[in-house]
Amino acid sequence: MSEILEEKKFIEVPHKGLFFIPLGGVGEIGMNFCLYSCDGKWLAVDCGVGFAGENLPGIEMLLPDPAFATTILPNLEGLVITHAHEDHLGAVGYLWRDLHCPIYSTPFVSEMLVSKLDEVGLLGRASVEVVNEGDALDLGPFEIELVPVNHSVPEATALFIKTKYGNIFHTGDWRFDKAPVIGKTANLQSLKNEKILALVGDSTNVFVEDALSTETDVKNSFVELLKGYKDKKIVVTCFASNVGRIESIAYAAEQVGRKVCLMGKSLWRVEGAGRASGYFKDFPVFLTDDEAKFMNQAEVLYICTGCQGEYKAALNSVSYDVGNVHLGAGDVVVFSSRVIPGNEQAIANIQNRFIERNIEVITTKEALVHVSGHAGKQDMKKLYELLKPQMVIPVHGEIMHLNEHAKLAHECGIKQVLIIKDGDVVHLDIDDFNVIGEVPTGILAVDGKKIVSISSEIIKKRRRLIEDGSVVATVVLNSDNNILGNIQFSAVGLIETESEEYTVLNDFVKSEIDNLSSEEKLDNSKITDVVKSAVRKIIIQNHGRKPLVDVHLVRV
Amino acid sequence: MSEILEEKKFIEVPHKGLFFIPLGGVGEIGMNFCLYSCDGKWLAVDCGVGFAGENLPGIEMLLPDPAFATTILPNLEGLVITHAHEDHLGAVGYLWRDLHCPIYSTPFVSEMLVSKLDEVGLLGRASVEVVNEGDALDLGPFEIELVPVNHSVPEATALFIKTKYGNIFHTGDWRFDKAPVIGKTANLQSLKNEKILALVGDSTNVFVEDALSTETDVKNSFVELLKGYKDKKIVVTCFASNVGRIESIAYAAEQVGRKVCLMGKSLWRVEGAGRASGYFKDFPVFLTDDEAKFMNQAEVLYICTGCQGEYKAALNSVSYDVGNVHLGAGDVVVFSSRVIPGNEQAIANIQNRFIERNIEVITTKEALVHVSGHAGKQDMKKLYELLKPQMVIPVHGEIMHLNEHAKLAHECGIKQVLIIKDGDVVHLDIDDFNVIGEVPTGILAVDGKKIVSISSEIIKKRRRLIEDGSVVATVVLNSDNNILGNIQFSAVGLIETESEEYTVLNDFVKSEIDNLSSEEKLDNSKITDVVKSAVRKIIIQNHGRKPLVDVHLVRV
Repeated sequence: MSEILEEKKFIEVPHKGLFFIPLGGVGEIGMNFCLYSCDGKWLAVDCGVGFAGENLPGIEMLLPDPAFATTILPNLEGLVITHAHEDHLGAVGYLWRDLHCPIYSTPFVSEMLVSKLDEVGLLGRASVEVVNEGDALDLGPFEIELVPVNHSVPEATALFIKTKYGNIFHTGDWRFDKAPVIGKTANLQSLKNEKILALVGDSTNVFVEDALSTETDVKNSFVELLKGYKDKKIVVTCFASNVGRIESIAYAAEQVGRKVCLMGKSLWRVEGAGRASGYFKDFPVFLTDDEAKFMNQAEVLYICTGCQGEYKAALNSVSYDVGNVHLGAGDVVVFSSRVIPGNEQAIANIQNRFIERNIEVITTKEALVHVSGHAGKQDMKKLYELLKPQMVIPVHGEIMHLNEHAKLAHECGIKQVLIIKDGDVVHLDIDDFNVIGEVPTGILAVDGKKIVSISSEIIKKRRRLIEDGSVVATVVLNSDNNILGNIQFSAVGLIETESEEYTVLNDFVKSEIDNLSSEEKLDNSKITDVVKSAVRKIIIQNHGRKPLVDVHLVRV
Repeated sequence: MSEILEEKKFIEVPHKGLFFIPLGGVGEIGMNFCLYSCDGKWLAVDCGVGFAGENLPGIEMLLPDPAFATTILPNLEGLVITHAHEDHLGAVGYLWRDLHCPIYSTPFVSEMLVSKLDEVGLLGRASVEVVNEGDALDLGPFEIELVPVNHSVPEATALFIKTKYGNIFHTGDWRFDKAPVIGKTANLQSLKNEKILALVGDSTNVFVEDALSTETDVKNSFVELLKGYKDKKIVVTCFASNVGRIESIAYAAEQVGRKVCLMGKSLWRVEGAGRASGYFKDFPVFLTDDEAKFMNQAEVLYICTGCQGEYKAALNSVSYDVGNVHLGAGDVVVFSSRVIPGNEQAIANIQNRFIERNIEVITTKEALVHVSGHAGKQDMKKLYELLKPQMVIPVHGEIMHLNEHAKLAHECGIKQVLIIKDGDVVHLDIDDFNVIGEVPTGILAVDGKKIVSISSEIIKKRRRLIEDGSVVATVVLNSDNNILGNIQFSAVGLIETESEEYTVLNDFVKSEIDNLSSEEKLDNSKITDVVKSAVRKIIIQNHGRKPLVDVHLVRV
């Protein structure tokens, strides 16, 4: 499918007025990264990663391209991180060198950030300023309040941004939880009397109709559930950053006389950041599995990483019965998580391995063991009733989510709603609420230690390697243009090492070179072409694939 | 994760007694292929493909390994195909040369099979015998009746197999549809008085609680739905083999004054097989898109392949606005299909492309536009009440499905239920209903024109190519063991063609060879090792990847 490449014309963002420009996260889930501009001064909000699909072989993580952001330096006043999820802060370590601005976030987010910056050698270079929930933060023309909201990670905040042109409410990831386990129910009453010019809002759960259960409901449900497995081994898996969930599970464990053991690197990272910011204080130090393995297993509860079926996570090892935790018939594994689209089969494979050994698997289908951190339709309606924004921009979603969110906003009586895409420059002006043009945007891929464009030659060739394979042929010619010895071939992942096919290739390529005239044999590119087409001919015939062919020609 | 490889001991299947041996489809969805043995004579049922996941790069299709089946020739009396779905007949073209037995199926299935055999040059060699629904078929000790059941393809049959040891009911893929569009409601009353020793049953929809709607409900729902898009362009996508669905849509199209246009190769293949077996007879010849494009678009309805988001299918082209069908704001695309797990994101991507252009997308969430062809819990209970089998073997599912099916069978009062896996030899004997041992089984991959083991070196190396890349280096040494010229490198998909990294590699590899003693330089394997480790060192340093390295050493 050839994409029609338009010659895009980019604009310069006016030096007067208030503008919103998403560089990631609008039209896709992940890579949240956006800019606000007010009279030529800039504010960045969030800087997250995305996850690559099958079409980008060898790539796990994606980043929003910061190219445009680099053009606004040194007018970038700061980067505010709304909460500690990878899709909101995961790209900071990769892109901070391009932004070079101070970072602001709540204590828990800062702890998480510092641990990440440490890993990439940026600790002490990138400044991370702690801002408490509810505190004000003045960054040039932006007067910002970090407003606590409920979400599946501690200290998630919405941003209430005051400017001379009007006030913005940037929701971040949020919901109303009437009985959270960590923090209080999001209370936006103080904003009721503020005039909100524009609301930039999370669309993730816009297809969810009903009001969600509370985290306290989940906690209580866990207490009841665990009672049913008195003498059994219990393993629970959840998203590592969900500190409230870990507390819910730890509370339930305590109620049934079990100590919590954490398994998996990211859980321990969160534990560290959590304790440093005052969480888990009602719970004793968690056990490692090396400690827990010697205990009575009816007095332990294991919490594992790997709820999305990740190959390298703790739960996968448990499913293969490798490591310190050995489950048997009648034991139970609880998936205290949702299924992120795309991970269905990986998760099912792990569940099947448990079921095969008669280990019970409990998911949200069987019990209230998870609740989403995103606002569904009911919460969104409540928000619109309360804040009555003049204009709405749906973000944080694929186009289908943005579209549905726009419908909902209209239903709530919002007259001005804009569906936009990454790179759009939106004028936040009640009389001219519009996309006035575009700035450059794109997606980068983390390729091992390198950062490359997702349309780079490297990735394209890697796709060809899978579909068609590659062959490297080394041909040695003497001064009389005769072939010396056998042609050496490498056809990794295409022909087995000990295959007779190499003889066939050798004979055919040799005969094709021999057929050339003496003059043609002097022409390196002619010989290369002949070798390439000879190799392709054999491979197409035998494999039905048209490989990439490289020729190493040696003349001696 | 290292699998523990057990030394498996295989048994010889006894020459007395009745046995069931699945070679595929038990413990996985797809690759249905099983054997029945009665006093040393054999019957094969179905021979289907599976679809490969991300962990098998370059592979689309999987086949059950027929190795064991080849050991029972010439006692294999025949292969009966229950219905025309790929996971039941798709492997015949690949494996028939190994089985070399007559094939039996209903007229529509035979038409589909013949068209596939034609493609692989087996037409006229493999004999396909037509058996009408309800007819009896005697194959050695097996007296077989093809019993019509309802499914999402015409002429699906269960097999009622009489033997001297007792009767088997092999459900195939089935459901009870009270108002099908093609065929009649499955009527198993005639079997009510038969004694059923063993039921081998479809587990696909065992997690579905409710009784399903009928295909006629879907048809009527389509009529109502289409009325809402009077002057709009309408595109519907569905599974190509679902002839009943195509008739439902064609009927609804007719009701609102539209002619049907088919788009996509597999739809036309089914159309051909369908008309040849008497379907579509109430409908005029379908249009091609070349014909339809000149018509008033309000008088056309397009049916496209690609409901699973397939890259090469018709709907994907439509979503890119490439080809003859150009949709615009207010037009509609109906997904008359379910989402096969694993295809969620591919389907969402296509839907997003439509929604982006304000084209409406209708799925099963919005309207009754699809119904499954598999029995849910209600239908399964009805079946057990009617047939009262003495023993039950759940098949056609992952372990979680087999397990749930076993629970359901127990709830229905079946005392003897066995959960088995591919390769298990089950003795079908009321007093000894048990797995008596195992025969060899496995999975093969269609790799272009080759058929390879899924654990072949080729596929393992292909995974390494993606994760770590590969480098081929050609080193030329003269008779004094000095390096001639520059070292030539190929690092496809790892280093860009015009990268300066090749200079770095060249310099480092050369210096590493130069550091060798004169004696070491005479040792080819020493030089090869030095080159490999030098290349790896640079690539690990620059890319964080540990590539496969091949060295072409040339001595002149």
